[in-house]
Formats: sequence, C-alpha cells, structure tokens
Amino acid sequence: MKYSFKNDYSEGAHPRILEALVKYNFDQQNGYGLDDYCKTAAQFILDKTKNPHSKVHFVSGGTQANLIVISAFLRPHESVVSAETGHIFTNESGAIEATGHKVHGVLTKDGKLRVDDIQKVIDVHQNIPHQVKQKLVYISNSTEVGTIYSKEELRDLYEFCQSKNLYLFMDGARLGHALTAETNDLTLEDIAQNTDAFYLGGTKNGALIGEAIVINNKNLQEEFGFHLKQKGAMLAKGRLLGTQFQELLKDNLYFELADHANQQAMKLKAAFKEIGCEFLSQTFTNQIFPILENDQIERLSQNFDFYVWKKIDDKKSAIRLITSWATSDDIVNTMIREIRLLK
Amino acid sequence: MKYSFKNDYSEGAHPRILEALVKYNFDQQNGYGLDDYCKTAAQFILDKTKNPHSKVHFVSGGTQANLIVISAFLRPHESVVSAETGHIFTNESGAIEATGHKVHGVLTKDGKLRVDDIQKVIDVHQNIPHQVKQKLVYISNSTEVGTIYSKEELRDLYEFCQSKNLYLFMDGARLGHALTAETNDLTLEDIAQNTDAFYLGGTKNGALIGEAIVINNKNLQEEFGFHLKQKGAMLAKGRLLGTQFQELLKDNLYFELADHANQQAMKLKAAFKEIGCEFLSQTFTNQIFPILENDQIERLSQNFDFYVWKKIDDKKSAIRLITSWATSDDIVNTMIREIRLLK
Amino acid sequence: MKYSFKNDYSEGAHPRILEALVKYNFDQQNGYGLDDYCKTAAQFILDKTKNPHSKVHFVSGGTQANLIVISAFLRPHESVVSAETGHIFTNESGAIEATGHKVHGVLTKDGKLRVDDIQKVIDVHQNIPHQVKQKLVYISNSTEVGTIYSKEELRDLYEFCQSKNLYLFMDGARLGHALTAETNDLTLEDIAQNTDAFYLGGTKNGALIGEAIVINNKNLQEEFGFHLKQKGAMLAKGRLLGTQFQELLKDNLYFELADHANQQAMKLKAAFKEIGCEFLSQTFTNQIFPILENDQIERLSQNFDFYVWKKIDDKKSAIRLITSWATSDDIVNTMIREIRLLK
Amino acid sequence: MKYSFKNDYSEGAHPRILEALVKYNFDQQNGYGLDDYCKTAAQFILDKTKNPHSKVHFVSGGTQANLIVISAFLRPHESVVSAETGHIFTNESGAIEATGHKVHGVLTKDGKLRVDDIQKVIDVHQNIPHQVKQKLVYISNSTEVGTIYSKEELRDLYEFCQSKNLYLFMDGARLGHALTAETNDLTLEDIAQNTDAFYLGGTKNGALIGEAIVINNKNLQEEFGFHLKQKGAMLAKGRLLGTQFQELLKDNLYFELADHANQQAMKLKAAFKEIGCEFLSQTFTNQIFPILENDQIERLSQNFDFYVWKKIDDKKSAIRLITSWATSDDIVNTMIREIRLLK
Repeated sequence: MKYSFKNDYSEGAHPRILEALVKYNFDQQNGYGLDDYCKTAAQFILDKTKNPHSKVHFVSGGTQANLIVISAFLRPHESVVSAETGHIFTNESGAIEATGHKVHGVLTKDGKLRVDDIQKVIDVHQNIPHQVKQKLVYISNSTEVGTIYSKEELRDLYEFCQSKNLYLFMDGARLGHALTAETNDLTLEDIAQNTDAFYLGGTKNGALIGEAIVINNKNLQEEFGFHLKQKGAMLAKGRLLGTQFQELLKDNLYFELADHANQQAMKLKAAFKEIGCEFLSQTFTNQIFPILENDQIERLSQNFDFYVWKKIDDKKSAIRLITSWATSDDIVNTMIREIRLLK
Repeated sequence: MKYSFKNDYSEGAHPRILEALVKYNFDQQNGYGLDDYCKTAAQFILDKTKNPHSKVHFVSGGTQANLIVISAFLRPHESVVSAETGHIFTNESGAIEATGHKVHGVLTKDGKLRVDDIQKVIDVHQNIPHQVKQKLVYISNSTEVGTIYSKEELRDLYEFCQSKNLYLFMDGARLGHALTAETNDLTLEDIAQNTDAFYLGGTKNGALIGEAIVINNKNLQEEFGFHLKQKGAMLAKGRLLGTQFQELLKDNLYFELADHANQQAMKLKAAFKEIGCEFLSQTFTNQIFPILENDQIERLSQNFDFYVWKKIDDKKSAIRLITSWATSDDIVNTMIREIRLLK
Repeated sequence: MKYSFKNDYSEGAHPRILEALVKYNFDQQNGYGLDDYCKTAAQFILDKTKNPHSKVHFVSGGTQANLIVISAFLRPHESVVSAETGHIFTNESGAIEATGHKVHGVLTKDGKLRVDDIQKVIDVHQNIPHQVKQKLVYISNSTEVGTIYSKEELRDLYEFCQSKNLYLFMDGARLGHALTAETNDLTLEDIAQNTDAFYLGGTKNGALIGEAIVINNKNLQEEFGFHLKQKGAMLAKGRLLGTQFQELLKDNLYFELADHANQQAMKLKAAFKEIGCEFLSQTFTNQIFPILENDQIERLSQNFDFYVWKKIDDKKSAIRLITSWATSDDIVNTMIREIRLLK
Repeated sequence: MKYSFKNDYSEGAHPRILEALVKYNFDQQNGYGLDDYCKTAAQFILDKTKNPHSKVHFVSGGTQANLIVISAFLRPHESVVSAETGHIFTNESGAIEATGHKVHGVLTKDGKLRVDDIQKVIDVHQNIPHQVKQKLVYISNSTEVGTIYSKEELRDLYEFCQSKNLYLFMDGARLGHALTAETNDLTLEDIAQNTDAFYLGGTKNGALIGEAIVINNKNLQEEFGFHLKQKGAMLAKGRLLGTQFQELLKDNLYFELADHANQQAMKLKAAFKEIGCEFLSQTFTNQIFPILENDQIERLSQNFDFYVWKKIDDKKSAIRLITSWATSDDIVNTMIREIRLLK
C-alpha cells in the first residue's frame, strides 16, 4: 500500500494519548465535560495563554467548533467575513448558513484576511437594514493553504475589529503547526489577547479527536454550554476529550508533535527546492504545494498518495503534501530519494 | 469516593475497545468514515439485522444522531411526535427545534408511545395548512424510564405509521439493554424491518463514544453524508468510531456488555424487592426506580451516588440506579448488603 | 349566500381606510416604512400609550409579527412559554420552531397564562444546560378563546417575568376588542408599562392588513429593522400600513370599531342566554361560544356560517360566533330572531 | 418637494385597483387566499401562461416570495446560485441564509446568469459531501440592473438546469417591465415552460402590494400552503392580493402599466443620448443608468431625487433613474428639458 501524504489525520493518536486513556479508564467521572481531566486540561490552557479569565470548552471536531461558536455569538441578522479559502466558506457543506448566517467570501492571495479585505465588505453593505450586518471575522492559523499570521498582522486585525465592533475568531485546527513554524512570532498569549475566541486543534495534531475552544471575550462566555448541548457536541464521556488534551498539554507534547510535522514538511520542501521546483505558496508549516510536471506527478504517485491541488497549465500542476506527528524519518527519507530522482 | 450509580457513562471503555484502538493505531486510513473499520462495522450491522439494503453511519452521540436524522428526513413544515419523557423533548436543549421542527410531547404512563397517542396528536392538527404536519414518530428503546417495546407493540406502531405516511425512528442509545432484557422478544432483525431508521448506542454500552445510525427506508438514505458534515458530525478520524463498533460487533461483545448491565440491575432490584420496596416503573433493563423512605435514601447515599428521581410524598421518593458494563460483582454485592440493612 | 360569523376578517376594510388610501395615493413617499404616514401613525401610538420611548414597526399580519418579535428577541437556546390555546402553539404551522425556538404549551382553563403556569415550566427545566432556557412569555389579549386579562393579572405576570428575567410579549391581534370589553380595566398605557412588547392588531379590526408592533424594552429595540427585512416583512410600500393605522388612530376609530364588534357579540350572547343556553367560556369580547343541541346547530346553520368548536357530548356542541366592525344591526337582529326560534 | 426617480414604489396604486378594493369591500369572503378574487386571478394567470397545471400563490412582497419559494424547494444541504447583483445575494438582509441555505454569488457583466457561470460554481464544489450541493438557480427578469433575458438565453439556462437536476427560479418583481421591453422576445408562456417557478410582481407595477408566485414543476407544488403560513405570508385577508391581481390581469392593465414605465424611461434615455451621455448598462426597461459629470449630477439633483449608483472616476458617476406606471408625461417632459440644459 502507498504511503499517504493526503492529510494529517490518517493515523490514530500519539501513543501517550492512548496510554492515558488506558490509565484513567476505570476512574468514575462526571459526564458532559465536568470530569477532572477536562478541568485540568482547561487549566493548562489558561496557564499557557496567561489569561485566567478565558473559558475553555472541548468539542469533537473543527466544523462543530466553527458552527457552534459562530451561531452562539451572532444574532440572526449578523454575518461572517472569511477568506474564500476559509474552511467555513468552502468545506463545511454550508454548516454556518445552516445556522442562519451569511458568510462573505473574500478572494485573497495567500489565504489570509487583512484589514482592507474586511473594510471592502463593510463598504458594500451600507444599505441598512436591507443588507446583513457584518459582525464576526473568521481567520484560520495556519490557513487552509499553509500560511501563518504574524504578530503584527494579528494585532492589526484585532485592533480593526474592535474599532468596528466586530468579533475576531481564529480557527486553530492547525494552530500547533502555526505556532511552531520557523517564521512564526506569535505566542498563545498573543492569540488570547488578540482574538475574541479561538481553538486549539487536537485532531490534526496527535489526538483521536478534539478541539479546545477558548473564549476570551467575557461577553461571549455566558451560557455557552447550552449551545454545545443543542448542537450535539456535549459528549456524555467528555473525559475522552479531557484526557487527551490533558496529556497533550501537561508538558510540551502538543508543540513537539506540531514541530515534528513541520520539520518533516520542511525536509521535503528542501528536496523539491534542490531539484528546482517552484511552489504555489510559501509555507513553513506542515503543508507544502510544490509545482511539478505531469510526468513527475505520475512517477511520485506510484509510491505515494497525495492530492493534485491545482492545475497550473497543460504541463504542470501543484500538488499538496501534508505531514503529521506520525510521519517518520524513514518515510521522509524514502520520499526525498524519490524526489531527487524526479530531476 | 462514593461509587456512582448515576449513569452508564461514568467509566471509559471496555478494555477490548482500547486494545483495538492501540492495535490499529498506526494503520493509515481514509478520513471521514471511509476507513476499513467503519466499512467492516457497517457490514457486521447489516449481517446482524439481515437487511443488506440498510445504510449505516457512525456519529459521536445521541443528541447528534437525533438532530441529524430528524432534520435530514423532514421538510420545513413537518413535525415530530414523541413521548414527553422522550430525550428529544426534554433533554436536548431544544436541538430538534433548533433545526426548525416542532416536537409534540405526549404524556404516557410508561415512556412508550402507542398508536392512540399518535392518532390523538393527528386529530387535533387537521386545520391544514395552519397547523404543522406530523411526519415522524420518535421512540426510544429502552425508554428514558427503562421500559421496552414488545414485538407486537413495535409492529403495531410501524403498521400505523406506514398507513399514515409517518416515519418511525427509534432512539437506540440503550438498544443493547432493551434487546437483552429478560422480557424482550424483539431482535435486531425485527427492528430493521419495523422502523425507517434506528441507532445502536455505543456510548452507554462500553464504547468511548459512538452511535451507529441505521437507515432502512431507501428513500431516506440518499445524500445523508451532507447532513453529517453540515452538522459537524463527520469526524476526520471516523476510524475512532469504526474501530469501536467493529470490536463490539465482531462477536457478541455488544450484547454481553448490555446483558451484564441488566443482570447487575436485576440483582439490585431483587434486593429491594426482598426488603419490600415498590418501584416507580417495572423495568428489566439497566435502570431501576425503587421507592424509598427519606431516611433510607439518606443512608444509601452515604456510600453511593445516585439521582433522587421523583418525590412520591413527604416521606418517600423514587431513586434512579443505573448499572453498566463496568458495574462489578463486588460493588453490586456491597450495595446489596447495604440494601438489606435498610429494612 | 349565508352570512358568515366564522371570523372577523371576512370583509375588506372600514370605508374611512379606503378613503384615506385614495386620498394619499399619488403623494410620493419613501419606501420601507420611512413614509410620513408610518411616522404619524407611530407617533399616535406613542401618544396613546404615553410611552415616548417605545419603538413602533408595522407588519402585515399576526403570524409575521409573532415570529419576527420572538426570533429577534431570543438567542438560539432560549424558549417560549405559551398557553396550549396560544396562536403560536397551535395555529401558525410551526412558525416559531422554524426560527429555531421551542414553545412550551401550558394547559389552561381559560386561555390565560398565570404565574404558577410559568413557574411550573421553569421548575421542570432546571437541568442546565441539557434543557432549554425559558426566556419569553407569550400571551394573547383577548385570548384565542375570547377572554381578557385584568390589570392585576397583567401586573402580576410582568412583575414575575421581570423577577425571573423573562420577556413578556402580548399578541394583540384582537387587542382593540380586549380594551373595549365591558369587563376590561386595562389601558394602552398599562400595557406599554407592563409588557416588553405587544402589538395592536389591524387586520381583525377594520384594516385591510396590518399589525403595529410596539417594543417598550429599550434593550430589545436595537436593529429591529434587519429582522423585518430578513423575514420578508418590510413592505416596499410601507405606506399601505402607515395610512391605515394613521386613519384608525387619528381619532378613536380603532376603539369604536372594536367596541361595535363586542356589542354585536353581546347582543347575540344575551339572546342565547334568554333561551337558556350555557357557554363554553365567559367572554365579553367579539367571540362567543354558546353550547347548543345538535338540531339547534343544524337549524342555525341553514342561514348562517360558523364553526362548530367543540363537541360536548353526543347531543351537544359548542359553536363559535365571531362578530366584527362590519357586523350590521340588521344581521344581528335577524340572527337574534333565529336564536329565539331555537327554544 | 423634488420629484423622485429613486424607485417604482413611491406612489400608492393604480386607481383601478383602489376602485376594485372599494367595489368588493363588503362582500364576505373566505380568508387565507381561499376567496373568489384569488381564484379568479390565479385562473387569469394560468390562462395567460397557457399552463393549466401550474399552481398560483399570492404573497405580499419579493423578499417574502424569494425566501418561501427557496426554503420550500430545498433540502437542508442544498444551495442557490445567483448573480452577485441578485436581490437575494445583496439586498435581503440574509433572508435566504436565515432559512439555512448558502447562496453562491457569481460576478456577471450585466446582471444575467449564463450556463458557464453556473457550471463554474458546480466545478469547484465537487468534494462531496464536504461542500454544499447546488440545487437551485435564481435569476431576475428584468435584472436588478435593468437588463432582460432573451428567449434563447432562458431556454439554454433551463435546458442546462434540467440536465444538471437544478431548479430554475425567476424573480419577477419587474417581470412586466421585462416582457414589455422593446427588445424582449419572451412571453409568459415561454417563462412558464422554461422555469420551475417564477413570480409576477405587483408591488413595482401598480399594486399596493403583492407578488403572484407561479409553480410550474408539479413535484414542487405539493403542500406549499404550509410554507406560506409558517413564514407569515398567508394573509387573513388574502382578498387584498386577489382583488389587485384580478384587476391587473382581467385585461391588459398589468402590461400597459409596465409598458408605460418603460416608455417613460426610454424617453429620458433618448434625452441623455442626445446630449452625448454614455450608460453603465444597455437597458430597455424602466431603469436607466446614465453616466454624468459631477456638476451635471448636482444640477439635476436640485429638482429631482435619484440614486448616484456607481462612481466611475473622480469626475463622473452613473446615476440610476427609475420610472413607473405613475410617472407622468409632464414630469418626463420637465426632466427632458433639464437634461438638455446639462449639455
């Protein structure tokens, strides 16, 4: 069977997580997120963000996190601004609209929203009340195309959002990868200070499932549990989420796993560079988009699985390779050898 | 710490499930329910129901299963009939209404819906189109108060539903317990033949999480995946659900675990009978509702946790005790000794 | 053709309303409720309620008023308490649930909600966040069965609602009839002081269409226009609503029309009493529910149309007769003659 | 006061409509659209479309028509394709999304959707079930920028829609103006044969309020009344809508009024052409978009009200002028004189 670089959720969980599940298995715990492990894991997050007033909630996946946060925060006439590449705009089967809210998609060059992008959406929605009111800005870090926000970019966005009475919400399905990228200058603390809410993704970083929603804005914290329950996100055995995040966060495991994934991607990137490849976008996280000739793609795909991402012209396409906490040195070395043979 | 009889999801998972998760952990699999384990587990269900044309989907919990099934099956003007004790009517924070549908609650004596109950709802909604149209009947087996449906009762309901063009949907969060009750005469095959859809609960029967939705009615099978995705139920690592159900269903484990829970409950029930207790309802599954005097409740609660379910009069209340796959003989024997001391 | 007592919307509009439409027809006005007539009509309402801080919005009908007010006021996890006879509970085809909110129906003896009724709903929804949160109390005045609230009853309700952080919303589709009933002691001023919002019905009181929503609670006034637009209620020619309410409210026409309807009903009531009839409920507004023998019903229905409302026993049923601003003395006298013949 | 060319709903109704309302005022009629006038008006439409199997429903406005039709036709995971200029995409405050459905906005050069535009949306939504399913194509005729569809264009669209299992729905708020444009080659019959549903707008063509929804596709006709009721669109006095459409359609009034509006616009267009103006788009209906210099705009706006539609550069902008059934020759002649003075 071919090795797959299609995504970062092809394997189960990091062994330490399975060990923790076994270790605590027979301890009786309260249901619905009121177990000891959820409490501890939440505290670890507050410690790392140095924001004791945030509230933490664990849910099973990213689409769930996005739809609950957004529908809980907004009134019926309020809308969301997202990049066109944003997961909520294109890849969640209308999950946000199904809760009643319009999502404005903005064309961007690198998957990142900037102040000007948002201002332009606002500018063409001034015919009140005939047009929806923009109220929440959705960004992903790292983005769906592997790029990351700098400290300055995030600060600018948040400052703008506050001046316009907009909420800023960060999808952190791959936040670990963003924060451990070599070009990153953001910390969890910065994110807690410069967003109204965000989440720390577990599913794509070594957990079986799980995203940790962190609500920083006090006005948005109230009665959030109702929304979790109503949308089917409150697991009877919330301990499953708590145990995993407790293990990921009790030391530096969460960031070590993301860092590993990034480094494996960077090794592959270097190999592609070596043979003269160009890339669709400049990424320093666990997604790379090398542009290859059709026959090169065919040769690589004999032993590896990956997505052909975007046709460049009749002769070339960009492919997408994703590495993960589980991508071994062995497989990376094998891949590098095959890349070198493409030249 | 006190031992808790509050519910059947206080522990993690049956050890065989954790072992399976460890065993398959590093096999790369497709995401979103397209993994080998989901396929195998689905096939096991089709084999056991002897209904090869059903479609199986795995989700993380009961509220999620209920809201997705119901919202996928109904058009905007259609409503649901449920017992007032039905989980969707009282305990899901308005999850069904949040998808746009009215739920009619029917007062029942034992948590079970009968043909007459449904007919009465239809009778008072004949002012078309000013009143909603009843389209789906929701039942739970075992019910939220521990009772079960007989073969004849289910057949009557389904015959009626078909004659009235209503869908019949069975919440099977505790279906294992229903099917292994000593008074049960239903089989999985009967259920597949006499419902439009149902689910097999994993969370309350030894899994970490997971319910297996089975759609029998072909007209309702189409494009169900969109609804799973849109409601945030399609796990990237669907393997977590597949692996668990594969293990539970590859032999008889699923039913053994439920049978164990039932037997532990019946032992406690016998002990309460021995000391002359009456019960709020006659149950043969893993929930019992003995009526105790206030001081007896106080004494029992020194070593055990449980819910005081319903006040009977100033001197007496019914309590609820729930056993599970994890309730050991030791704890049952200890409890029985304490029950005998209540006399 | 038989004369119909089936409802109070069988004719067009009071002639003065049609005259006003003709009079102002060619004046150019702003669209969407920003016309001069809407402004004037709104001011008339503020004058009559002596509450200059209320906000007034005109919509086309009662179901529309109900669904917009309720969905604008509530967050997704909040629910409504209504009498089981409440229009939103039984006669709006699931309109409120379609906006995502559960409606709790309470069985009442006379269509009126009391503090105890609401408290009981709250009492059985304490399992937070697994159960919805009650947030709005919906009452109708006059009710769907013709009864009215006294000043004391309304004050008690509002005091209770404020103490429990609940909104009180009054459906006033027949508010004119309530306020002109001989047993009434409420004023528009009382209603503005003792509800968070209410509406003044036009459709059933001489207008072609139209209900005037009055929002008293300042926190609920903000951005209401968006909800009107989003739900399709913001008429391009809002002038149609403004012109009518301006005419109804510029003097006492609104109350004269309702009073006329009530008086016609009371004359019929007296005739039924005269022949020894009992009534399903004691009403002093434009709906009466005399209990007749089957053959009496048959005889009356030869010349008049009305609804047989409720079967009492095999020999008797209650019928419903509704009078309106358009019910003439002639028709009432004819009817009275026929009633006397029933003896 | 300045004469307004801002829109086609600044006046009340054509005098014949008011006369009809007066004439039938005291006839008792059934409520909720079951009156004689609605029946007659519906028949007039079936006669004119030569499609006896269509179903006709009257509602009060365009946003209401759009949201009810679309939410009634679609299942939760289905989406709508619209031009970015489409009324539902930009000017209905998120009405469609509030019913749960995504609207894909397509940039067009002239407000009209073409087969290629739709195909491109489908092409980028092939990742099933992670992306919504396109199911309904929304077009307006005339469009929001005054352009119209030719017979060939409509046939191509409908053929494509049918081949792709998409519904085609035409917003006809200004359908009268489209069908009477000098460049038009479509008939009502063509439209009934080449759409699944459409509506005939009354509000912008001489009625007080009202749009006549015509559902041609039999599969979509069933139980439509429930949706009207649930969304608050079923007027108690449906006669108000029936009477108006009966009057508009009993002879050729509907088309005469639209033709009048178009001709007045064409006279203004000719005057602008005479002084050498260019136009933002080539229109033959009641909307024109002449491009003027800033000082010309200022001069015109001393006596007339209109919208400055789009800035072209620092010196020029396009303005929008809308004429209606009520725009008199006098005012057009006055305007033409002022236009000539702009040279």
